[in-house]
Amino acid sequence: MKPYVLGVDVGGTNTVFGIVDARGVVIASNSIKTQKYHRFEDYLDELYTEAMKIIVANDAIGKIYGIGIGAPNANYYSGMIENAANLPWETPLPIADLVSKKFGIPVAITNDANAAAIGEMTYGAARGIKDFIMITLGTGVGSGIVINGQLVYGHDGYAGELGHVIVKRNNGRLCGCGRTGCLETYCSATGVARTAREYLETRTDDSILRNLPIDTITSKDVYDAAVAGDKIAKEIFDYTGTILGEAMADMMVFSSPQAFILFGGLAKSGEYLLKPMREAMEKNMLPIFKGKAKILLSELKEADAAVLGASALGWEAKPVAVEAE
Amino acid sequence: MKPYVLGVDVGGTNTVFGIVDARGVVIASNSIKTQKYHRFEDYLDELYTEAMKIIVANDAIGKIYGIGIGAPNANYYSGMIENAANLPWETPLPIADLVSKKFGIPVAITNDANAAAIGEMTYGAARGIKDFIMITLGTGVGSGIVINGQLVYGHDGYAGELGHVIVKRNNGRLCGCGRTGCLETYCSATGVARTAREYLETRTDDSILRNLPIDTITSKDVYDAAVAGDKIAKEIFDYTGTILGEAMADMMVFSSPQAFILFGGLAKSGEYLLKPMREAMEKNMLPIFKGKAKILLSELKEADAAVLGASALGWEAKPVAVEAE
Repeated sequence: MKPYVLGVDVGGTNTVFGIVDARGVVIASNSIKTQKYHRFEDYLDELYTEAMKIIVANDAIGKIYGIGIGAPNANYYSGMIENAANLPWETPLPIADLVSKKFGIPVAITNDANAAAIGEMTYGAARGIKDFIMITLGTGVGSGIVINGQLVYGHDGYAGELGHVIVKRNNGRLCGCGRTGCLETYCSATGVARTAREYLETRTDDSILRNLPIDTITSKDVYDAAVAGDKIAKEIFDYTGTILGEAMADMMVFSSPQAFILFGGLAKSGEYLLKPMREAMEKNMLPIFKGKAKILLSELKEADAAVLGASALGWEAKPVAVEAE
Repeated sequence: MKPYVLGVDVGGTNTVFGIVDARGVVIASNSIKTQKYHRFEDYLDELYTEAMKIIVANDAIGKIYGIGIGAPNANYYSGMIENAANLPWETPLPIADLVSKKFGIPVAITNDANAAAIGEMTYGAARGIKDFIMITLGTGVGSGIVINGQLVYGHDGYAGELGHVIVKRNNGRLCGCGRTGCLETYCSATGVARTAREYLETRTDDSILRNLPIDTITSKDVYDAAVAGDKIAKEIFDYTGTILGEAMADMMVFSSPQAFILFGGLAKSGEYLLKPMREAMEKNMLPIFKGKAKILLSELKEADAAVLGASALGWEAKPVAVEAE
């Protein structure tokens, strides 16, 4: 069996790719600018050129088993990217087929949160765990659900959009999806910044966050303020963690995971976020599930995580490619 | 292969059991009173005696492949009934092991809603559907979730308690589980009756429901009043259907089922319930899922449904019994 996979993480700004071996070691990696190429053909030419450089340099020609791609709104079943607002190309885009033909290697794709879950299951904190829910707390909130060792794709390939469960039925915040009250409008990095602006505008008590121009406040600023002992900053994390914990208690009645695995920038807020989250989750938990769900943090090194997650899917690429060619 | 299974539905009042063939034909069935036997041993003796009568009468000795049992809080993995408030026996009760030893036949158990989902997948509306959610609208709200053709049991065997997602985070109704705001406090038969009492007590407009003693009103009374054109009764169904539809839109982002299958007494309320439910579901649906989920009604004959559902599990009984003996 060929010893390597190529992982490709297509982000709105950068596309990171790397050669990964079966134990999850990133042999080599590099990146190109996603936004620079308005035609997908030009982007693919550049990706091919740059990827071949590291493949050649590492004596990996003919040794790549499959290519795994994580990308926004990428569909595992169809191999298409559909309606991705942050990417510069026309959609629907048959990315699996196009990349597979260019490289002559089988390709499997899925969305970024699902890729993260597969990466965690293959190389990270979820090794040996058959039932878990990965929650990615980044610019938005994404999720990858694993049941009985299998990623849940749903009948159409789009399952696992837990950032879009409604947590505020009335007067909820407007979400990018067009609805109101979605989890990600509260518990993403952006959501934390929105909460900060809301608190600062509607309250009068002191906060070192008031030293910053209100429109520029980020979740990192709120974290730094909390570390410095700022009361409002801590309350912002209490509010965020409580909403997340309440939502997780509802997720528990669905698939009864053994663990929730948190990933992404906001997951690094430590106990400021985790303490209120755990408390709200257990307080709102159906009695039969109390004390059962572990809270784990991703064990993938941040710099490698996106590539590792995508690459893990490369090991599943065979069947898709057989259909594609 | 042995041609029959024995299905046993353990209800709070009656235990119904029947011999079922591979095409889902109930060859013979009977029932005993669950509440009559305060010691499980006595109950099991009676169940054995009565079941053997129909087994003998139908020349089925040595022809029963497995026994499937549907019971409240029954755990597929452990074979135990744990904490069942409506049953007269001490729990935890190793029912799979005890029944298996008594009959000398492998036994598999699960809760009633999961049994209904397996029955529907094997013999009913879900044949050929790999991803669906069964929602049972009875005294409570139960659910059985099927993903990729497999029932979701979760890491501990208790997954799929969708009657206990929180639909009212503030000022929700007290639920039997000890928490407040659970789906089943609104969308069960009992929930409809509670809504009726709430509407009649807090409003002053006419309703034929006011002719009934308020504490005796059932969901059937509300249905009859709606059929008779009663405005409040129709509004009660609008309220119930809307909450159910909103909850279903949230279930959709989890597993993206191809269909929801409704089962149980309240599911027979027809368009009074289904119209507001469909409207609320589509109105609250994440755009990517709009128009995708079918709403189906159970196709199992009501008299046979519980036994059929339980019996279908009998075909899976082999592995459990090997461990048990």
